[in-house]
Amino acid sequence: MKHFINLNDLESVPELVKQGRALKADPFSFQHLGKNKTIGLLFFNSSLRTRISTQKAALNLGMNVIVMNVGADSWQLEFEDGVIMDQGKAEHIKEAAAVLGQYCDVLAVRAFAELKDRDADYEETVLEKFRKYAGVPIINLESATRHPCQSLADLITIEELKVVERPKVVLTWAPHFKPLPQAVANSFAEWVLKTDYEFVIANPEGYDLSPEYIKNTKVVHNQEEAFAGADFIYTKNWSSFEHYGQVLTQDPAWRITPEKMALTNNGKFMHCLPVRRGLKVADEVLDSPDSVVIQQAGNRVWSVQAALKNILEAL
Amino acid sequence: MKHFINLNDLESVPELVKQGRALKADPFSFQHLGKNKTIGLLFFNSSLRTRISTQKAALNLGMNVIVMNVGADSWQLEFEDGVIMDQGKAEHIKEAAAVLGQYCDVLAVRAFAELKDRDADYEETVLEKFRKYAGVPIINLESATRHPCQSLADLITIEELKVVERPKVVLTWAPHFKPLPQAVANSFAEWVLKTDYEFVIANPEGYDLSPEYIKNTKVVHNQEEAFAGADFIYTKNWSSFEHYGQVLTQDPAWRITPEKMALTNNGKFMHCLPVRRGLKVADEVLDSPDSVVIQQAGNRVWSVQAALKNILEAL
Amino acid sequence: MKHFINLNDLESVPELVKQGRALKADPFSFQHLGKNKTIGLLFFNSSLRTRISTQKAALNLGMNVIVMNVGADSWQLEFEDGVIMDQGKAEHIKEAAAVLGQYCDVLAVRAFAELKDRDADYEETVLEKFRKYAGVPIINLESATRHPCQSLADLITIEELKVVERPKVVLTWAPHFKPLPQAVANSFAEWVLKTDYEFVIANPEGYDLSPEYIKNTKVVHNQEEAFAGADFIYTKNWSSFEHYGQVLTQDPAWRITPEKMALTNNGKFMHCLPVRRGLKVADEVLDSPDSVVIQQAGNRVWSVQAALKNILEAL
Repeated sequence: MKHFINLNDLESVPELVKQGRALKADPFSFQHLGKNKTIGLLFFNSSLRTRISTQKAALNLGMNVIVMNVGADSWQLEFEDGVIMDQGKAEHIKEAAAVLGQYCDVLAVRAFAELKDRDADYEETVLEKFRKYAGVPIINLESATRHPCQSLADLITIEELKVVERPKVVLTWAPHFKPLPQAVANSFAEWVLKTDYEFVIANPEGYDLSPEYIKNTKVVHNQEEAFAGADFIYTKNWSSFEHYGQVLTQDPAWRITPEKMALTNNGKFMHCLPVRRGLKVADEVLDSPDSVVIQQAGNRVWSVQAALKNILEAL
Repeated sequence: MKHFINLNDLESVPELVKQGRALKADPFSFQHLGKNKTIGLLFFNSSLRTRISTQKAALNLGMNVIVMNVGADSWQLEFEDGVIMDQGKAEHIKEAAAVLGQYCDVLAVRAFAELKDRDADYEETVLEKFRKYAGVPIINLESATRHPCQSLADLITIEELKVVERPKVVLTWAPHFKPLPQAVANSFAEWVLKTDYEFVIANPEGYDLSPEYIKNTKVVHNQEEAFAGADFIYTKNWSSFEHYGQVLTQDPAWRITPEKMALTNNGKFMHCLPVRRGLKVADEVLDSPDSVVIQQAGNRVWSVQAALKNILEAL
Repeated sequence: MKHFINLNDLESVPELVKQGRALKADPFSFQHLGKNKTIGLLFFNSSLRTRISTQKAALNLGMNVIVMNVGADSWQLEFEDGVIMDQGKAEHIKEAAAVLGQYCDVLAVRAFAELKDRDADYEETVLEKFRKYAGVPIINLESATRHPCQSLADLITIEELKVVERPKVVLTWAPHFKPLPQAVANSFAEWVLKTDYEFVIANPEGYDLSPEYIKNTKVVHNQEEAFAGADFIYTKNWSSFEHYGQVLTQDPAWRITPEKMALTNNGKFMHCLPVRRGLKVADEVLDSPDSVVIQQAGNRVWSVQAALKNILEAL
């Protein structure tokens, strides 16, 4: 594997899920791969799970780890070409990426959608410029439109917990007062579509995700209908794709409650975290034995470790 | 040892002091204990000594170390139960602690008193929630009411330097313009009370520490009286416990001066640092050979390394 | 080598350049030197190259690495002697440096010029206080008036690329709207003067560097004249030394353009980075094959690794 930016960078989703599960059973067997190799973790945004699970995965593989909060530790970066840099941004991505590629064998980058310009976000400006200029493999730690480390951890979790060969998986929107990116939802859809799971998306009108990511997935605007018989309820808020970056509704009727979970087939509750209790989901759901959010977060280690192992093997 | 949060977590103070001194003489003999083990350091507040000495101790034990400034690197955490999280705090401690426990074999947490609500501070909300939800051992890097890593380093220092079997140790308040927590003073009292030292506390009226921590220790409101014949002068400012979190006086007469030190039995000057020169203590005292603050700070490595070694052995 | 603060700390510039090039060819052969040794990196200012290349170099040498952003992670430091510390600064450099010296075998410090008080900057208050109080070797990661890690990397780059025995090297000022320190320019001059290169400095009137650093180097106020026949064009902005810290001109005529580069002897374009595209230099220059800024930045690893290796050998 050369990069881990999007699905085009990998050969087989099921094979990577299998490798993640194998690493979970045997975390330290590949430390020779990382010896004297350095990964640089670059955060343009806040992070807890991604920050720590990625460090852990790299250390499990014997790598050296260097972490940088781009804005606070370093210089503001310019991504536009051809500008005269006479404002606040002191360094251009062309130099920054190339220089970081001199120091690190692998770079992992988090850069959220800005939700101002849909085209800019969906062209994945930041991650693609790192791919173009760094000269070393890039791992996507959540970009404007995708979060593959999360999606791989999600599939590992489903594979661990599913009790039927072909579970029904529901991706449901839940309310939030702030405009959030579509990345986790987009990415989950893309990855689930590489499996043979039954897949349904539930969201209010105006919140349909980009067709490029969800293809011909069944989308319903009635949450109860979607939940009926579901094995996994994957909850996430996202802002509108159509009315880009807008919060069209905060309708509390879309909150996940025990009553709704009762409609499922003993469905497991999933969420990428952080999750706002009370707002998106009732405490009773998160505190029930059917909530698997902690196991899901734990699997973030094995997800990124699987990607990183493949990258190190191809160096 | 399962945790290192407060004195109830350990069996014997003198034994731990002894182990700390042994590690100082032989720092690298237990690296097998930490191999492929990860400690996560979580800072809700600023830190110099604690931040670096804890990293050093963990590295001495062969561990992997991950550091996170909670507010700046990650998400604001909610500690209240049952709230609807529709404000600035994006993640609940229930999830945050449990997730961090998935990634780290040991968590070390610094969370100062807020000095607004005495009950909340003295219930040790933050540290106890980490204990409850993380599922892994917790090390207290200064909580609302205690700083055991400091207290253990303090006792190591006294044991190294004492010239009589049962030294007279004075904990004295000194002036400061900001309201500071009682944690260092509370904790020092608790730990000294586990030794057979003669122990006296000197503070202005209105500044008596919580009886729960100082028990029946002699408290005097006359600094000179306390200093007479003392072997160790441990200086610290704290805000009022009774009038919780208030600065009742900044009386410069409580500043530590060479004249006051002359009342002691060639007493050593101790302070946990950082210390404000000129304000709490005269430069001449800090710059004299009887100031042992640097040695005391150096012992922070062996203090936390002793606690961590015990925790690793019990994993 | 005891410290790496300024040229007086080392015996031979050419020998250190040679060692840097040897480490580039064989980076991992000295890991025994750093085993169980800790370097602390202290940043009073932003950093990308220095932050990451220094971590990389220390890891290459088998060291443990601890990084601290002084202001954000720790306490504001007081550097004045004899003051009553009743303002925002919580810790004095006397304690901070001595304590850090207890935890770290080597300290590396970045502290830019404040450009307010020329005497204070040129006395190198911060770095010299670390030298005085820390009790361990100090590495200069850019101080008020010098950047030796950069200068050594610059000479390594010139040695790698030069096609004549004694190249003509030009240090040229370029426009910027903010007042920047003289450190990189000062230091480059000092180091080049330890070689036998032909050396010319070009800057507008009012921008002559301190005679103490540039000695009797030829200074011209005509950029084209300086560029004629040059093998290396080293570009940097600096504020006025004479009118200390002031921006006297932003004259775009001093911007580096392809037309000016055409006056050189196929000259290589160098810059320490970050560089503001369009403002100081035309995109066409930075994007041309004659720009060697990335190679130059890459050499920052071998530069600081050479200094650190010498320091470890002398511990």
